[in-house]
Amino acid sequence: MNSVDNIQKLINEYIDNQSFSGTPAELYAPIEYILRQGGKRMRPTLCLLACDLFGGDINDCLTPAIAAEIFHNFTLVHDDIMDQAPLRRGMETVYHKWSSDIALLSGDTMLIKAFQYVLNTNKKYYHEVFAELCKVALEVCEGQQYDLNFETQDNVTLDSYLEMIRLKTAVLLGSVLKIGAITAQTNAKNQEAIYNFGISLGMAFQLQDDIFDCYGDVSVFGKMTGGDISDNKKTYLYLKALELSSEEDKEILINLFKMPKGRDEKKIETVLDIYKKYHVKEIVTDLMTQYYEDSLKHLDSIDVPEERKVILKDYANYLYKRNK
Amino acid sequence: MNSVDNIQKLINEYIDNQSFSGTPAELYAPIEYILRQGGKRMRPTLCLLACDLFGGDINDCLTPAIAAEIFHNFTLVHDDIMDQAPLRRGMETVYHKWSSDIALLSGDTMLIKAFQYVLNTNKKYYHEVFAELCKVALEVCEGQQYDLNFETQDNVTLDSYLEMIRLKTAVLLGSVLKIGAITAQTNAKNQEAIYNFGISLGMAFQLQDDIFDCYGDVSVFGKMTGGDISDNKKTYLYLKALELSSEEDKEILINLFKMPKGRDEKKIETVLDIYKKYHVKEIVTDLMTQYYEDSLKHLDSIDVPEERKVILKDYANYLYKRNK
Repeated sequence: MNSVDNIQKLINEYIDNQSFSGTPAELYAPIEYILRQGGKRMRPTLCLLACDLFGGDINDCLTPAIAAEIFHNFTLVHDDIMDQAPLRRGMETVYHKWSSDIALLSGDTMLIKAFQYVLNTNKKYYHEVFAELCKVALEVCEGQQYDLNFETQDNVTLDSYLEMIRLKTAVLLGSVLKIGAITAQTNAKNQEAIYNFGISLGMAFQLQDDIFDCYGDVSVFGKMTGGDISDNKKTYLYLKALELSSEEDKEILINLFKMPKGRDEKKIETVLDIYKKYHVKEIVTDLMTQYYEDSLKHLDSIDVPEERKVILKDYANYLYKRNK
Repeated sequence: MNSVDNIQKLINEYIDNQSFSGTPAELYAPIEYILRQGGKRMRPTLCLLACDLFGGDINDCLTPAIAAEIFHNFTLVHDDIMDQAPLRRGMETVYHKWSSDIALLSGDTMLIKAFQYVLNTNKKYYHEVFAELCKVALEVCEGQQYDLNFETQDNVTLDSYLEMIRLKTAVLLGSVLKIGAITAQTNAKNQEAIYNFGISLGMAFQLQDDIFDCYGDVSVFGKMTGGDISDNKKTYLYLKALELSSEEDKEILINLFKMPKGRDEKKIETVLDIYKKYHVKEIVTDLMTQYYEDSLKHLDSIDVPEERKVILKDYANYLYKRNK
């Protein structure tokens, strides 16, 4: 079996050796730009880890793993247009560095490139991988649309928020793990279990991101906290606070989240004070932990020798314990 | 063999029976909206005509034909964001009816849906069809990027304009014909010839569109003429006029095309006067006819009995003689 380090080295080398350049340069330079930034490369890593778990040849799932990484970056490029976000991973976004037109078209090109990578996958499981990627790609778009809808929707429920992050974040983790399992040609029961492991892990991951956005260590997190509050994002923290608040605090929260988007230290402070009053951070942390523990249960249910699961378990724990 | 009417009936029925709805409604309603508008459905028609020409079973290429139609509509939805276009086919654009965010996301969803349709293609030629669709999709994005570049580029040449419309319009016609040929499993030489037929036909088609935009019969064309001039589009007509103009007329043209976008009857009149002075309409019509004749030569070179070519030849002639 391969260590996470080995797998990440393989992925990084593979991506480094790919050319994303082409003409016109305006179309391809943003693709080179964003794919060379790196990031956690969590999706291809999970894909190869799952393949390895089930005894597959990790080289066989490199192309769909890279497809998923390109797809993920495509969603970032298009999301940044919608959010008019200037920064991502501490770097200028494509939208901000070039233009929204270029971000739109480069993003489209990345989506097509992602599918094109699947073409080079072993024909044995090529159709299955392709089908999974189409399915999950649609779900991610649905999640992003729910996220957009919530901006102007007054009655967002906790459940609908969880469904939104399931679609926007968790399903892609589930699918890359499943694709790894498909290329290793394990049985349907194992495929489903590793998929569910990814869903729970993804839910924990997103809730953790929401917590970091409010309480992260700025020097480690790499950006200022309070971004979601500034953007009036109806995260689980906000929705939980709303549920628990007195009528008075509820009104304050609602009105603060109707302010125009943009940084306002006083607003952030007031919101965080209300979160504190109702122990929102602790409640969301508990939920996150619950999802993390669920993910481990799904991993437990997988029918391979326990010692094979250690690497994936450690990686999940590393994500759970991360501080950025 | 099937008549064009038969083929179009089959395509329309097939599309009518597809559901493009889903949740969230905001994401899927625009897809239903644009795909129910119809339009010429030229791309799936050409795909099935090519399949039939080579004696294939047209039912076998329905899914890639629909994929190409959805892909084409995806490009319209995203192009309309970039052009901030309010109308298309006499109807409000998705961008204008909903929002640019929704047009962006619905467009992404359509691109994924297009690829998803290919999944249901016969596995015998599935990989080849998929590869062709990825290749052409990238080319269309490249064409659109060149088109965007030309807006702010001073030295656009006639050749670079032709290369732009080859990528933006012609290659998709070539590819759908080739896909039809692939599903009919004809030889590589025939595949190449039908592809080149489509390229030439596509070039003629786009030049004709440019001519209609200036000289179309408003009551038939369905929109006001002079749109390209209002948008400062550097079409072949404009570039040819620039090439032939006296220094004085050249300066007038250049300055008029530096005006802010938007309708100005006086500007349109002045530009059309200059076009008339240098016989630009006739020159571009001649070039269009030359491409049309080239397309017929490619059709002639195809190795099937002449009587099988009549339907496709008639359809090309119908496109050439169209008045909208």
